[in-house]
Amino acid sequence: MEFLEQRIRKDGQVRPGNILKVDSFLNHQLDVDLLDEVGKAFYDRFKDKGINKILTVEASGIAIACMTARYFHVPVVFAKKARSKNIDGDTYTSLVHSFTYGKDYTVTMAKKFLGPEDRVLLVDDFLAVGKAMRGLIDICSQAGADVAGIGIAIEKGFQEGGSFLRSSGYDVCSLAIIDHMEDDGQIFFRQED
Amino acid sequence: MEFLEQRIRKDGQVRPGNILKVDSFLNHQLDVDLLDEVGKAFYDRFKDKGINKILTVEASGIAIACMTARYFHVPVVFAKKARSKNIDGDTYTSLVHSFTYGKDYTVTMAKKFLGPEDRVLLVDDFLAVGKAMRGLIDICSQAGADVAGIGIAIEKGFQEGGSFLRSSGYDVCSLAIIDHMEDDGQIFFRQED
Repeated sequence: MEFLEQRIRKDGQVRPGNILKVDSFLNHQLDVDLLDEVGKAFYDRFKDKGINKILTVEASGIAIACMTARYFHVPVVFAKKARSKNIDGDTYTSLVHSFTYGKDYTVTMAKKFLGPEDRVLLVDDFLAVGKAMRGLIDICSQAGADVAGIGIAIEKGFQEGGSFLRSSGYDVCSLAIIDHMEDDGQIFFRQED
Repeated sequence: MEFLEQRIRKDGQVRPGNILKVDSFLNHQLDVDLLDEVGKAFYDRFKDKGINKILTVEASGIAIACMTARYFHVPVVFAKKARSKNIDGDTYTSLVHSFTYGKDYTVTMAKKFLGPEDRVLLVDDFLAVGKAMRGLIDICSQAGADVAGIGIAIEKGFQEGGSFLRSSGYDVCSLAIIDHMEDDGQIFFRQED
């Protein structure tokens, strides 16, 4: 989507090691009007899929999930990264390796919020290797829920997450796909047909 | 606010030890239409305060902050609970004790997103002892930012956070204040004049 590519070009910062900083609008400071456009784009793409629930992983994904759910008028459920007193009863869990934090963590979701009756849209701010998204898919599989679509704000197209998910048959909508970044700050986006 | 008290009576669950479970609509599964009402209530209360930024702590607070920011059309910044590669440069930090997780943690915010020019609304889903909120106030103090108001969805009025903040001079708006809960499930809300 043009609007997100333009914003990345304007405010994103490339750092050595293929790191893209978008903390001024997407994952630390949040531009809520931009996130609203993201949510509307996911709605336009997936509105005919019968989606009745939106899933994400804390923390940045929550903002995108909420702004998307406004259009669908369905609940959000976010998987938690730490076991807390706020989750009790039976839970689904899946082990995820975070490259951002450099360690493994478990994502957890109460069983009562996901089941075979659900048609789910998964959303997140970034897709790179795809470990967090595979954790959510694993939880949906445990629940017998149907993954009707995957909405991603920024996909690092030079890492394997997107191609793995598409070749596995998932309907992935990434609003901006980066094919290549250079340390001088140049960003090359994938051109869609 | 009547709408939130009604929802707590309908879907909240009281557990022994003064625990109130609202995970079906506020902090695990999220009812986005309800959160929109929360955001509108905060806007109605604080719209004349010159607020130019909304601050919260990950994770549940992000949802409320985003739905509130839609009305103010100002950015959200959320403090992070773990040090990650996604925060670089100078940071504000404050030590917080979490009763939910039973341990201390550090909240972190990039300095570039908060400064003396900011008039800030702090929001969170719960106020009990008030440790997370004091962490945010500490960060605002370090930044020289002005705390123009504090918006809370559910305040546990029988714990000291609310009275501490009000006696310190902060303008606190809690949409539902619980004075007392009983193990049989009865919830007694504070009646405002």
